[in-house]
Amino acid sequence: MDISEIGKFALLDRLNSGFETKQQSTIKAFDDAAVVAAASNKTKQICSAVFLEGIHFNLVYTPMKHLGYKVVTYAVSKIVAMNAVPQQILVSAGVSSRFSVQDIESFYEGIRAACSEYSVDLVENNLTASLTGMTISVTAVGEASENSLCYRSGAKVHDLLCLSGSIGAAYMGLQVLERERRIFETNHVQPKLEGYDYVLQKQLRPQARLDMLKTFEEHGIKPSSMTDIADGLASDILHICKQSNAGVRIYLDKIPIAVETFAVCEEMNFDAVTAALNGGDDFELLFTLPVTDYETIKSLSDFEIIGYITDSSQGAYLVTPEGNELKIKAQGWTFVTE
Amino acid sequence: MDISEIGKFALLDRLNSGFETKQQSTIKAFDDAAVVAAASNKTKQICSAVFLEGIHFNLVYTPMKHLGYKVVTYAVSKIVAMNAVPQQILVSAGVSSRFSVQDIESFYEGIRAACSEYSVDLVENNLTASLTGMTISVTAVGEASENSLCYRSGAKVHDLLCLSGSIGAAYMGLQVLERERRIFETNHVQPKLEGYDYVLQKQLRPQARLDMLKTFEEHGIKPSSMTDIADGLASDILHICKQSNAGVRIYLDKIPIAVETFAVCEEMNFDAVTAALNGGDDFELLFTLPVTDYETIKSLSDFEIIGYITDSSQGAYLVTPEGNELKIKAQGWTFVTE
Repeated sequence: MDISEIGKFALLDRLNSGFETKQQSTIKAFDDAAVVAAASNKTKQICSAVFLEGIHFNLVYTPMKHLGYKVVTYAVSKIVAMNAVPQQILVSAGVSSRFSVQDIESFYEGIRAACSEYSVDLVENNLTASLTGMTISVTAVGEASENSLCYRSGAKVHDLLCLSGSIGAAYMGLQVLERERRIFETNHVQPKLEGYDYVLQKQLRPQARLDMLKTFEEHGIKPSSMTDIADGLASDILHICKQSNAGVRIYLDKIPIAVETFAVCEEMNFDAVTAALNGGDDFELLFTLPVTDYETIKSLSDFEIIGYITDSSQGAYLVTPEGNELKIKAQGWTFVTE
Repeated sequence: MDISEIGKFALLDRLNSGFETKQQSTIKAFDDAAVVAAASNKTKQICSAVFLEGIHFNLVYTPMKHLGYKVVTYAVSKIVAMNAVPQQILVSAGVSSRFSVQDIESFYEGIRAACSEYSVDLVENNLTASLTGMTISVTAVGEASENSLCYRSGAKVHDLLCLSGSIGAAYMGLQVLERERRIFETNHVQPKLEGYDYVLQKQLRPQARLDMLKTFEEHGIKPSSMTDIADGLASDILHICKQSNAGVRIYLDKIPIAVETFAVCEEMNFDAVTAALNGGDDFELLFTLPVTDYETIKSLSDFEIIGYITDSSQGAYLVTPEGNELKIKAQGWTFVTE
């Protein structure tokens, strides 16, 4: 069905009706602005992100439902990276005439699944026309008491650098999808995606590590700094170093990479460490803990210690098993020519 | 200067450095998420909007600085329309290689001017590559005590319908700019914009009516419902009617239209009431007051009474000076073909 047949406001009504309120702090949704309660001694976290077709996602191999799920995961993960509980999201989508009502509904089905998974409420929702493809903006709102918040700026010399799970898989999932797309476009051979479940799942349906908030609470752990792996370990650790005015040593052989990811890397002749460093989209938590926490955490299997914080004068380096030090560089940013 | 020369993060540092914190509730900016304080008995309002080049703005005649100012005005106006005080904004911009560092800096100059005008803090800022043109997402955060909030859903039968200022000017400013663009593109004649200051100002540098919050407070007025004129009086009053389950009568000759707007309409052979009804972008406040407030407000010059709320069964109509009733219809939504 064409969107023009049903009309913007009727379509929005239909899309909004499938969302149930889960958070007590949600006071009003779908007005000029959303209203959330603000309890005493609490703080609100707000993050916002834009996703553009052709830059951040390719609809040739990304099902609309997975896209909806993933954009919510992205925003929720940023709130979790503050050690805060995500509670509400706001969505705006720009869509061109290429998209049907069914496409948009699939997209919102994914958003609904994510809202349910993360217990967040959709409180604002807008649609707009677009000249070219799809544009998505997601804003997430979270809550935390001020003293539980973790900024990127709190890392101290000697702190342990930790990671909540394996990385690089989402990037290799993308490489598989891109390879199959190219093969399909040149030879019209149907994509062969069997056997790549792990990396494809990590790319198409990543999870925000909301469960880690509980782990921290249960063990009385408070990271001195934290961020999530959105741009890749290299860029993300450099954010912590810069904002904490610190250096870092990461042990190359401690970076957690899943065997499934290694297998795909080997098959595609791709360096697994490069995938882990520059890949991004893993949504694992990267955080630092005071070295005095070592006794508490040494037996925990929820995360890995991958290095330690140094003085800023010592720079940011990767340490190879042979003891060589490789400078960590942020990924470049490439502009696309119109 | 090319953006690739300076790099994303260096450019963001440069852009962010010009913003000073003005709000006590701003706790942390430019981390994974922004952090705002949440005082007791207060509520937070959050609104988010996306602006796409070619759909929402045309850079042929919109200076980057004005664009920056206007997108902040849009988001701030939505918070004001909740009868809440705007305090923070978050910005994301997608830009293609067509844009220089200077372009982006001009855009942020406009954002900075708006932040200063409205006393809001920029707390998150992101840049991303774009395949086609410019994409902007702005999120605004406001604060109000719960009992001072005005929703779209509170209008009651017999309430007076009020408007904070004249409308239709922004739309006629757009018509002038579009006409001059067409003339320039066909005949290469330089745009003639003298004498159109009023309507051009309303289109290119509109103001959010933050001052009205003070007016309401000073006179002890609390609107029973409120929204802002973003889509045009017709669409916006229908939002109030629908969400309040009410009807409305608007007196055609009471709709405030500036003499400058009438003059441009006459010159361009355009119906001024149509401009006022469907124009949008005026950012005036449309609100309802209990009829018992009439004694308090009758001598105030800050806004006009343009009609009254009826039972929903009576529908939404415009009343002409001759007493004829014209059904109010929302503007259609047209999709653009890729």
